[in-house]
Amino acid sequence: MADLQPIVGFVLELDKLKGVTRRTQPLGLTRYENSAEHSWQIAMLALSLAHLAESPVNVDHVVRMLLVHDVGEIDAGDTIVYEENGKAERKARERAGAMRVLGLLPEPQRAPLVALWEEFEAEVTPESRFANAVDRAMPVLLNLANNGQSWRENGIRHEQVVKRVGPQVRAGCPALWSYLENELAAAQARGWFVSL
Amino acid sequence: MADLQPIVGFVLELDKLKGVTRRTQPLGLTRYENSAEHSWQIAMLALSLAHLAESPVNVDHVVRMLLVHDVGEIDAGDTIVYEENGKAERKARERAGAMRVLGLLPEPQRAPLVALWEEFEAEVTPESRFANAVDRAMPVLLNLANNGQSWRENGIRHEQVVKRVGPQVRAGCPALWSYLENELAAAQARGWFVSL
Repeated sequence: MADLQPIVGFVLELDKLKGVTRRTQPLGLTRYENSAEHSWQIAMLALSLAHLAESPVNVDHVVRMLLVHDVGEIDAGDTIVYEENGKAERKARERAGAMRVLGLLPEPQRAPLVALWEEFEAEVTPESRFANAVDRAMPVLLNLANNGQSWRENGIRHEQVVKRVGPQVRAGCPALWSYLENELAAAQARGWFVSL
Repeated sequence: MADLQPIVGFVLELDKLKGVTRRTQPLGLTRYENSAEHSWQIAMLALSLAHLAESPVNVDHVVRMLLVHDVGEIDAGDTIVYEENGKAERKARERAGAMRVLGLLPEPQRAPLVALWEEFEAEVTPESRFANAVDRAMPVLLNLANNGQSWRENGIRHEQVVKRVGPQVRAGCPALWSYLENELAAAQARGWFVSL
């Protein structure tokens, strides 16, 4: 019984990720998506797409990484990938948040989740590179299906997407980047991006 | 490239689970939670609690099952666990929904997800029993932290929780049920349940 209270405290603290909003709207809804439901969706995308990863991956390890990678946003909030200002400070806040939230767990449960969080950030292992690719690609897929909603609202240019999303998606899942590259060119032709 | 379009179609269809609302409110928010963010939270609970499962479990298998188990609600909606009427029809709608949604995937990706969905429903394997325990326990944990919000709103009695949640939580995670049993008695003493 002594074992359970910290775990319950942890999972209730996780509830706050349902209140962290991102810039993308779920298709057909007028609200913005939150980081909890986003984490679920990218885990499902990883399960469906693992056979196309750049190198063979342990998809269960990828899924675990994706489930845990955003918990630091409980303290730090979500920031659109195109925001270049204050990146180091934001990353530090996110890391501190992740350590605080995961720190609610007893050591045997905490340690593996902390390791997964660090692995995602380091982007070195094949699993981490694939996980980062899936995470970056998902809002692009939603935008492509939603008339470029968050690109329009945030004044994003086609070359920003190519620059900030392209390298990571290509590194983790080249087939997905080939797909997105074509779709992004079509979106640009349709006028979904701000031009300078 | 031919491989990617159905997978993209599938993950965009999954977006609809973000619009399927449950009866529980996230802590501190006035909206109701949706089945996508719920699926994420129970996967995290499973990762944190697997050492207390009734039998040793492959937690990655549990996580996969939990991620996929609610996709049928895209067509069928969510129903509170205490609703006894029309159960067979609801289950049939949910199964048909799951098969339709998972059916968007190419066969090699579809088959393992269908198997996971069926395994969760059958509640036979240790992984499935633990997954069902975690799924049933989560709204109870939220209610206990939220003054019995959904119990009050839906006129739920203490004995309904014990009857509809107890057996499955006990079967999959006895330590969690011992914890909940005590907490539920305390909640009853505080008057959070309707009495007849």
